[in-house]
Amino acid sequence: MTRIDGRSADELRPVRITRGWLEQAEGSVLVEFGKTRVLCAVSVTEGVPRWRKGSGQGWVTAEYAMLPRSTNTRSDRESVKGRLGGRTHEISRLVGRSLRGIVDTAMLGENTLMVDCDVLQADGGTRTASITGAYVALHDAVTWMRERGLLVREPVLTDSVAAVSVGVVDGEPMLDLKYEEDVRAGSDMNVVMTGGGTFIEVQGTAEGAPFDRAELDKLLTLAEAGCAELTAAQRAALEAS
Amino acid sequence: MTRIDGRSADELRPVRITRGWLEQAEGSVLVEFGKTRVLCAVSVTEGVPRWRKGSGQGWVTAEYAMLPRSTNTRSDRESVKGRLGGRTHEISRLVGRSLRGIVDTAMLGENTLMVDCDVLQADGGTRTASITGAYVALHDAVTWMRERGLLVREPVLTDSVAAVSVGVVDGEPMLDLKYEEDVRAGSDMNVVMTGGGTFIEVQGTAEGAPFDRAELDKLLTLAEAGCAELTAAQRAALEAS
Amino acid sequence: MTRIDGRSADELRPVRITRGWLEQAEGSVLVEFGKTRVLCAVSVTEGVPRWRKGSGQGWVTAEYAMLPRSTNTRSDRESVKGRLGGRTHEISRLVGRSLRGIVDTAMLGENTLMVDCDVLQADGGTRTASITGAYVALHDAVTWMRERGLLVREPVLTDSVAAVSVGVVDGEPMLDLKYEEDVRAGSDMNVVMTGGGTFIEVQGTAEGAPFDRAELDKLLTLAEAGCAELTAAQRAALEAS
Amino acid sequence: MTRIDGRSADELRPVRITRGWLEQAEGSVLVEFGKTRVLCAVSVTEGVPRWRKGSGQGWVTAEYAMLPRSTNTRSDRESVKGRLGGRTHEISRLVGRSLRGIVDTAMLGENTLMVDCDVLQADGGTRTASITGAYVALHDAVTWMRERGLLVREPVLTDSVAAVSVGVVDGEPMLDLKYEEDVRAGSDMNVVMTGGGTFIEVQGTAEGAPFDRAELDKLLTLAEAGCAELTAAQRAALEAS
Amino acid sequence: MTRIDGRSADELRPVRITRGWLEQAEGSVLVEFGKTRVLCAVSVTEGVPRWRKGSGQGWVTAEYAMLPRSTNTRSDRESVKGRLGGRTHEISRLVGRSLRGIVDTAMLGENTLMVDCDVLQADGGTRTASITGAYVALHDAVTWMRERGLLVREPVLTDSVAAVSVGVVDGEPMLDLKYEEDVRAGSDMNVVMTGGGTFIEVQGTAEGAPFDRAELDKLLTLAEAGCAELTAAQRAALEAS
Amino acid sequence: MTRIDGRSADELRPVRITRGWLEQAEGSVLVEFGKTRVLCAVSVTEGVPRWRKGSGQGWVTAEYAMLPRSTNTRSDRESVKGRLGGRTHEISRLVGRSLRGIVDTAMLGENTLMVDCDVLQADGGTRTASITGAYVALHDAVTWMRERGLLVREPVLTDSVAAVSVGVVDGEPMLDLKYEEDVRAGSDMNVVMTGGGTFIEVQGTAEGAPFDRAELDKLLTLAEAGCAELTAAQRAALEAS
Repeated sequence: MTRIDGRSADELRPVRITRGWLEQAEGSVLVEFGKTRVLCAVSVTEGVPRWRKGSGQGWVTAEYAMLPRSTNTRSDRESVKGRLGGRTHEISRLVGRSLRGIVDTAMLGENTLMVDCDVLQADGGTRTASITGAYVALHDAVTWMRERGLLVREPVLTDSVAAVSVGVVDGEPMLDLKYEEDVRAGSDMNVVMTGGGTFIEVQGTAEGAPFDRAELDKLLTLAEAGCAELTAAQRAALEAS
Repeated sequence: MTRIDGRSADELRPVRITRGWLEQAEGSVLVEFGKTRVLCAVSVTEGVPRWRKGSGQGWVTAEYAMLPRSTNTRSDRESVKGRLGGRTHEISRLVGRSLRGIVDTAMLGENTLMVDCDVLQADGGTRTASITGAYVALHDAVTWMRERGLLVREPVLTDSVAAVSVGVVDGEPMLDLKYEEDVRAGSDMNVVMTGGGTFIEVQGTAEGAPFDRAELDKLLTLAEAGCAELTAAQRAALEAS
Repeated sequence: MTRIDGRSADELRPVRITRGWLEQAEGSVLVEFGKTRVLCAVSVTEGVPRWRKGSGQGWVTAEYAMLPRSTNTRSDRESVKGRLGGRTHEISRLVGRSLRGIVDTAMLGENTLMVDCDVLQADGGTRTASITGAYVALHDAVTWMRERGLLVREPVLTDSVAAVSVGVVDGEPMLDLKYEEDVRAGSDMNVVMTGGGTFIEVQGTAEGAPFDRAELDKLLTLAEAGCAELTAAQRAALEAS
Repeated sequence: MTRIDGRSADELRPVRITRGWLEQAEGSVLVEFGKTRVLCAVSVTEGVPRWRKGSGQGWVTAEYAMLPRSTNTRSDRESVKGRLGGRTHEISRLVGRSLRGIVDTAMLGENTLMVDCDVLQADGGTRTASITGAYVALHDAVTWMRERGLLVREPVLTDSVAAVSVGVVDGEPMLDLKYEEDVRAGSDMNVVMTGGGTFIEVQGTAEGAPFDRAELDKLLTLAEAGCAELTAAQRAALEAS
Repeated sequence: MTRIDGRSADELRPVRITRGWLEQAEGSVLVEFGKTRVLCAVSVTEGVPRWRKGSGQGWVTAEYAMLPRSTNTRSDRESVKGRLGGRTHEISRLVGRSLRGIVDTAMLGENTLMVDCDVLQADGGTRTASITGAYVALHDAVTWMRERGLLVREPVLTDSVAAVSVGVVDGEPMLDLKYEEDVRAGSDMNVVMTGGGTFIEVQGTAEGAPFDRAELDKLLTLAEAGCAELTAAQRAALEAS
Repeated sequence: MTRIDGRSADELRPVRITRGWLEQAEGSVLVEFGKTRVLCAVSVTEGVPRWRKGSGQGWVTAEYAMLPRSTNTRSDRESVKGRLGGRTHEISRLVGRSLRGIVDTAMLGENTLMVDCDVLQADGGTRTASITGAYVALHDAVTWMRERGLLVREPVLTDSVAAVSVGVVDGEPMLDLKYEEDVRAGSDMNVVMTGGGTFIEVQGTAEGAPFDRAELDKLLTLAEAGCAELTAAQRAALEAS
């Protein structure tokens, strides 16, 4: 059984990671998972949130958003509506947690790494592309800090992090769902893993039929392979410079 | 190794489900997981959200909130701040999805089951207690509809649903974390399961050390047992009336 | 003429005051006026609002809210609407003023007593029940402060405070209106009094026919008797511990 | 004992009611109580709030606001803060209720009388001046409707309405407090009365010492006389045209 | 060709500038351009916005608003809607920039001149009347500062500033448009000039047909003459005291 | 005198217009003025704003925003702050008016062209680049409508529109200011012109010294030449397909 775009069930879409897409950010990446296109920018800012002041430790946080016409039909801007939607909140928090999972914030001093993931074009997997791209931009921002002597000690990055979606579509477990597949999926899962192969986050949801333990196991295995491939793509991008 | 409150690693806190705590709601439950106390109210309202009008189908949605002094130190009210926090959004959406996972909305006609979960006292596991209590309140609200001939056809409820938290605390997988355990947990997971033993939602997060596949498997097994017990408690409460 | 629930015109509904309903708050009370049920929590917090800093004096303030399904039909959450309604504002301010009327804030040091009154079930008189219950919770919070040596001097509480509603229903002045009576009342009044029998607040409104001076006098007399009874109930609750 | 501005205890400040201050409003009045200056505008608009549609009845509602520099020191705009304060809400609701107390809304058809009271300069008594001025503007707006045949039947206005503040200042009951007196008052009361001498609203608050029944009676008597004078001033203004 | 109100194309409406309209503001003016009536208040407040602290320099800023019934039909309050509209923002910024164009903020010390322009009645040209009136109120506020020794050095005011609208109505360039003319204008321009005859702001917009360079030149010439007349009126008002 | 980037005073930065940058929008352009990079998307949506319903006419409106890290230092998101700033409002309105200046909305039927201009990287001139790019995207969206028979009649586009900034920097009038120049400019002007050489909008502001009529004339002449060049670039981009 082939998929809508000709891939096999365990195949990622073409991944492109373009570093330095913004000239002014300390780290920036345009990441593409097929037609999904996310601009990740990492800003190094002095200081930490109030509740963390005086701790001597840094902080990593993230904000995710979609441009109004990144989607097939236009969505209203959250700035115009005057409030963030639940989905935006949820994904922003996920991206932040995922990156904090591989950063030793004690090494940052009282500085904040502010990660912005803005979806320019959406075709499924925007949150997993965000995490995967943001890691590379974060890596560049840490290099920027190192070059300026801003790090307390090394290593800041204890590992790398990547993420991928998996789901059961028409009864079959599949890797890296594009939008039409995501809509049809009975259940889907976003999996965030370190380069070392451990889990930072597993979020599985049955939109349609609940899934059993066997299906869950198959999805996790697919995701493990997908994250390993993405880890390789990140490494290649970082070595390319 | 015993836990802070004397439980064994695979033991739930005492569960109490008090039905009909509110006289005016179509279904209501005060659910207690130890000291965690959540008031779940289900309101049957005519009509569905705009995007669903004309479908002939009903809807189930949920809102979760904490009273300002449900916690150890007081938190500001979200109504006063003028916006919902990310955590509130996230849990509200989780509760709604979990309940929709066992409701056949086509049977409801164009009516909405609005579920309110208000945490009166918090000691860890408020979201899992909310789901577990809300199911029983929902069951009573469906009975209320049946008695008034408001159901299109049966069954509305395709299964029951319960939820429990699990986590790795001091290196050991544990069931149903109370607040102090939750704070110390390196990773924790909320698992939502049907009475039939399938998964509706799995949300695992490494707050500290990432977890490997073996730990993940152990946590899932603990959660399966915990949800089965909660399912039995729900059944007992429903038979008691 | 008997009332809808069999009471005489000058009779209160059964009053129940349960202290310590929350384990974590410095003072807490579940107060019931018949079916009206309000959870009052008092939090002792360091510091005072900005405009009071450096005065050496403390502060007492209150927030009132209703759970969405405390009422007969569900109301939208103010946190979701993103703004407080006028009624919520009005009652929060009334509760705060009423309590400040019997507290000598100079004795508190620069600490704030934050009072939360959350209506769990509403059947008329929620604001008067809030004040009556909050006083008892406040008393317990002051004891908590005394035991920790946080008071500047004594007495902090210069008197007790209780409140009751009165109104003209079908032409007859009545005490402690329940919801159906409140709706039918031509005019109603909320009266806040000290244990010593003086007035802190009198708020009378003609919803239907304006009232004359004679009716006003009768309502005040009814309220004086009602508040005296509530004062006795508060004292009994405080002595019970 | 004379007052700060030479008045006796039972004397109003000079009252000026200027009709037609705005050329475009259906009714408008600039009302002055001494230096307190409020612009009252009444707009006749087709339709009623949603919850009243189909009733065949009209509606009267009010909004009160203060210009930022109406006060001695500038206050921030509520439009800039993005939310209405509790005091604004409270007074808007009071003005609306007071006017509805003398309007037979069934006579208006499904039209709304929208009353705007904007304080241009504040020196105490802005809410009572608002009510007193708004009545005259409302009277003119009703005349405007009558001339266009928009009234269902007569009378729309069942009486007139006026309001005044009273308070105990330095132990003495006084009428129509100006700002410095209001600040010093131990207790104060706003009283809204019909031209016929009955009460629509009584709001008494002890800011300092609670008041006893005897003081309450004296304040009410002062207010009755003050409202009678204001009623005469309203009549004179309406006859002047 | 005469205009709707009998003026010639290059004629201003009657201008009235009433100083000291508010007793409590450091500077205040009621300015009238025909029926357009704006209340301008200038408040002297200690301190400057955060980004300017420590600079030793002052600041001038402005807020513009319309009363809900200043217009022909009532508009909703921005405070009730909870957000400022684009037009309000735009004009507030324009008024602030225009005044800063003639103030040497280094002479103010770290104080802020806060300018409030509230439109009481609108008939076209509210923004130009605001600027023209605000200058006079600002002048009085600077005098107030001078008398209290609050100025660092002189001169604070490097020039005066006035503003007028011009537009092409029915093909003919006209000065100082009233509302009906403004609505019919194919293009209109607001011009802010110093007393010395230089430009601080030129804002021309083609609402209908784009205008060519020749029309633009004619409009600028009309505006120069109008601003000169307004400058004379300002001077007369300031000398009158 | 050469400029910071080697240009002469009357020289534009390199202009790049990339059509079809988004696959899903009816019209889209990535426009670059040097390092300034704006993504313009035009969405064709059925229906018009409420106040225009039943007119048979269409509508064109625009929203402008900057990504948080488009600038040299990160700015907070307006969606997170919960309100749009004044500058955002002002530019959104400018872009909308500029495009409406060359669209005959009667030809659109009751459809709306919604224009989104999102600044990905900012180096001065973001509003003029937005207008210039948006015109090309709008042209493509109109072609999309034509191909689907959605136009009432032709021509929809009565002309083209482009915009450029000019300003006096260090005493010399210059074309198309980049960020460092903009900051140093004593006065600057944004000029919006049709392809036919007439003016749609002229917005000149003296940030520093007011400008005289002679300077104003020079700036307008520079802008005329700049807009003509941009018009040529738009035409070339449109012919390229």
